[in-house]
Amino acid sequence: MNRNQLFQLIKKKKSFLCIGLDTDIKKIPPHLLDTEDPVFEFNKQIIDATHDIAAAYKPNIAFYESIGPKGWVSLRKTVNYIRSLTSDIFIIADAKRGDIGNTSAMYARTFFNTYNFDAVTLAPYMGFDTVSPFLNFENHWSIILSLTSNKSASDFQYITDKQGNFLFENVLRKVKTWGTNDQIMFVVGATKAEALVNIRKIVPDNFLLVPGIGAQGGNLEEVAKFGMNDHCGLLVNSSRSIIYASSKSNFAESARAKAIELQLQMKEYLKVLI
Amino acid sequence: MNRNQLFQLIKKKKSFLCIGLDTDIKKIPPHLLDTEDPVFEFNKQIIDATHDIAAAYKPNIAFYESIGPKGWVSLRKTVNYIRSLTSDIFIIADAKRGDIGNTSAMYARTFFNTYNFDAVTLAPYMGFDTVSPFLNFENHWSIILSLTSNKSASDFQYITDKQGNFLFENVLRKVKTWGTNDQIMFVVGATKAEALVNIRKIVPDNFLLVPGIGAQGGNLEEVAKFGMNDHCGLLVNSSRSIIYASSKSNFAESARAKAIELQLQMKEYLKVLI
Repeated sequence: MNRNQLFQLIKKKKSFLCIGLDTDIKKIPPHLLDTEDPVFEFNKQIIDATHDIAAAYKPNIAFYESIGPKGWVSLRKTVNYIRSLTSDIFIIADAKRGDIGNTSAMYARTFFNTYNFDAVTLAPYMGFDTVSPFLNFENHWSIILSLTSNKSASDFQYITDKQGNFLFENVLRKVKTWGTNDQIMFVVGATKAEALVNIRKIVPDNFLLVPGIGAQGGNLEEVAKFGMNDHCGLLVNSSRSIIYASSKSNFAESARAKAIELQLQMKEYLKVLI
Repeated sequence: MNRNQLFQLIKKKKSFLCIGLDTDIKKIPPHLLDTEDPVFEFNKQIIDATHDIAAAYKPNIAFYESIGPKGWVSLRKTVNYIRSLTSDIFIIADAKRGDIGNTSAMYARTFFNTYNFDAVTLAPYMGFDTVSPFLNFENHWSIILSLTSNKSASDFQYITDKQGNFLFENVLRKVKTWGTNDQIMFVVGATKAEALVNIRKIVPDNFLLVPGIGAQGGNLEEVAKFGMNDHCGLLVNSSRSIIYASSKSNFAESARAKAIELQLQMKEYLKVLI
């Protein structure tokens, strides 16, 4: 999927909502634990209830990895299930990988070929060598950590260089030259939405993946106001506040209701573009 | 395993050699492809041939992940097999993970509990939140990327702050305060061994995991000269030049011969400490 196709999908669905599938076996409704593959069963019901209003899904790989090899089976079934329902969807592996050379090439093959994702989140610390192998896959995306929404983001991301630039700004400036706007996206945390004004000066055209809406407290209205560009340019993620909206047997309906709350706001913000 | 136990095992084996198990299904001897689990079979033979002279093994997780869920089965069998042979060994998951909060806690559980590793490599970009959950596991280690040996390491690691400190120096300075010398280790590339002089001024006591010996061209003698401390303080990794020393049926013998070449040099360098 290229940038324009992603924009078309967003316009069609009137949504730039990304639903984070942070599926924790310890948090899913107990009645699912009797099924053959509880993680997949949970995801399936969430997906059934939300795939018409979500622009993207973002399984958080740690949650699958932590339950052993069977977690990867659940992950693969999840991606395949989404693909079987719709082609109007963008699927992100939230893996935050960051290695080099043949190792990085392995990761690219893993997520793009073995597991059929559209995009992977990557850490920038090791530089271009981390991203380079991912750029060889046409219509696939690298989503680079830039400014994250956690408390200790300031440990390194706000270190200023001699010219007064923050590290995360240097990451944006350098990484955007490594590939096209059809290949490179950035993770930008939503805890301080006004920071997006400055970020949009550096990367006016790239898509941004914005976590931190919902459980982490970001403000959707401000993110849209300061972060949107002429291709929308935003995927706003919410995980726990949607998928764990209820722990009862009607969890999927509750998830849908929560997702619709966000999507209806997004529909308003998208009106300027449609 | 704490720092002193690691030092004792290094002295006992007269080796600070870490063997990287970057096991690539496309590179292993063809006769193994007929076995039930070629990746494990390859590892098993390498381990049988080298576990008496290796201080550590370091499976590179990408290689296992890339072949799907069965790769994780091979990985688990590999760790269990090493544990069944000897307790005098340190096992590192070269995963370069870097996430936060409950996700990072998932990764810690994955590698320390589910897969029984002693240590995990981590990326520092997101700050303390990445490392924090790993510190809750006693006798387990976080190995933080600091100065890597790849060409594009300079993209960000050599950015200087207003005081003239490189980013990798800021990483060393800050991360070493997050845990004890029994918990925190650093990845320091070996392409410029003299850089270790400066690094040892910043982190005199921490263990360093040094890749880049062998296929990547680092010099073992200089690494020992500039990097060793009173607890040895070094694990020097070699992957491809050992495990792919031969592609014939005698590959394990060839791997042993290559490993012994390095170990005999290490034995010399360790004499000052034993």
